[in-house]
Amino acid sequence: MKTAIIGLGLIGGSVARRLRGFHDCEIAAYNRSKESLDLALRDGVIDTGTQSPSEAMDGADLIILCLYPQLNVDIIRDNLTYLKDGAVITDVSGVKEFMVEELGKILPDTVDFVGAHPMAGREVGGYKSSTDTLFEKASFIMTPTEKNKPESIALVRELAEYIGCRHVVTTTPKEHDAIIAYTSQLMHVVAVALCDNPMIERSTFFSAGSLRDCTRVAKINEVMWSELFVENKTELSKRIREMEASLEKIAVAVDNSDRAELEKIMSHACAQKLKWLEEKQ
Amino acid sequence: MKTAIIGLGLIGGSVARRLRGFHDCEIAAYNRSKESLDLALRDGVIDTGTQSPSEAMDGADLIILCLYPQLNVDIIRDNLTYLKDGAVITDVSGVKEFMVEELGKILPDTVDFVGAHPMAGREVGGYKSSTDTLFEKASFIMTPTEKNKPESIALVRELAEYIGCRHVVTTTPKEHDAIIAYTSQLMHVVAVALCDNPMIERSTFFSAGSLRDCTRVAKINEVMWSELFVENKTELSKRIREMEASLEKIAVAVDNSDRAELEKIMSHACAQKLKWLEEKQ
Repeated sequence: MKTAIIGLGLIGGSVARRLRGFHDCEIAAYNRSKESLDLALRDGVIDTGTQSPSEAMDGADLIILCLYPQLNVDIIRDNLTYLKDGAVITDVSGVKEFMVEELGKILPDTVDFVGAHPMAGREVGGYKSSTDTLFEKASFIMTPTEKNKPESIALVRELAEYIGCRHVVTTTPKEHDAIIAYTSQLMHVVAVALCDNPMIERSTFFSAGSLRDCTRVAKINEVMWSELFVENKTELSKRIREMEASLEKIAVAVDNSDRAELEKIMSHACAQKLKWLEEKQ
Repeated sequence: MKTAIIGLGLIGGSVARRLRGFHDCEIAAYNRSKESLDLALRDGVIDTGTQSPSEAMDGADLIILCLYPQLNVDIIRDNLTYLKDGAVITDVSGVKEFMVEELGKILPDTVDFVGAHPMAGREVGGYKSSTDTLFEKASFIMTPTEKNKPESIALVRELAEYIGCRHVVTTTPKEHDAIIAYTSQLMHVVAVALCDNPMIERSTFFSAGSLRDCTRVAKINEVMWSELFVENKTELSKRIREMEASLEKIAVAVDNSDRAELEKIMSHACAQKLKWLEEKQ
């Protein structure tokens, strides 16, 4: 078996680091820059490294797309003739309807795409930041469709467990995108919006931990996240407007000095948060 | 010298733990419940503990108010006759215009109130959660006014350094409240608003770290924070509307698939965040 990892960055690199022995596969990696390939070869993490996507994908039984969503689609479109009949493709992108729809338009029936999204990340990127423990506490979300063969779905699930994900969850691309618009994208929007306020310039010595934590993810890769936001615009737009409505409800209670209403909103939010924390364990 | 700590909770307890030897003072504490007083006496943190505010304040040269703002004011109003001529009063409240104005209305000229706010806290409260390292990384914000005697201001500054605060910053009550409405209150509003969204119920296995961090402070003391919000309503209301405007700007860019605008907003926010982090060091 040959497995191709397309894009040897933080996530691709961390997948590669856990792949040794999976179906006794040969591990081939494509990356645009040679430096990460050389490092991964030196580490013994991959068997072959190439700057040619077709070379990496040629004859691969399993292809793991680890680039940004649009680039994942482009690279498949440009190399359709190199896809092996019966190949299974999966990905690690933060948007799933986009991936399923776009690849659905171009893939032949002989190749099966099973969308996936391991819920892990770091504030730093690149192969040099990859670790073999990145997925230890991570959920792995799969979004198979009725077009997928059971054995393709089983292979991707097996991969998730092999790389060490803690939970494997199956849902639809639509449900994934609706929830991720909240759990991940809205949090990045909020962190960015908070740091968009000129007040931060006067805040140097005026903060305990809340500003730091609420804005942790404002240290953001703007190229990747602007792409993800736009590829999930319908759901994200709804989540941002829901946030605006919640804020306005609090602002009105503040304006009215309505402590009872404020206490009610806070108690409810606090209970929801604690319930989430508990269920996540 | 006698120092009275009014309210032996997380902050009052943590101040008391660092007070031994400060001007060789006798440390008297008032607390509503006896349990914390007994614990602090057992720990050797205070010299006397009482459930009578007048007894604690009687003859005190320095009074440190560590209750919620309104209660701080009420307890001074109810015990004016016990205040020693020349006494210095300070506090640890998260709102400063309210404290300066309300105490200004009732204090005799012979007693000096110097407002203060050590920027430290924990998600847990009470004397049992107090520590002698709580202020290690904390700024101590002082908001003296032209009514304060230089020696009163000097004493409070000395106290800040004695309890181990890392930076001592002086500003006006108004500026304090404007900034704190951003650095602290808005962060709590945002965390609460995020958890007010029913989406959190579907999010159990759909999150890496951003939801956790953005909502850390949603585990909130709703009685204290609703009071603080209302006591700083003018500034907080502005900060919430600024946040709504920043969110709407992002939402419109998302709706328009305007990646250039999104990248611009994110780059600016990221730079602001990194600058804040650097200056804070």
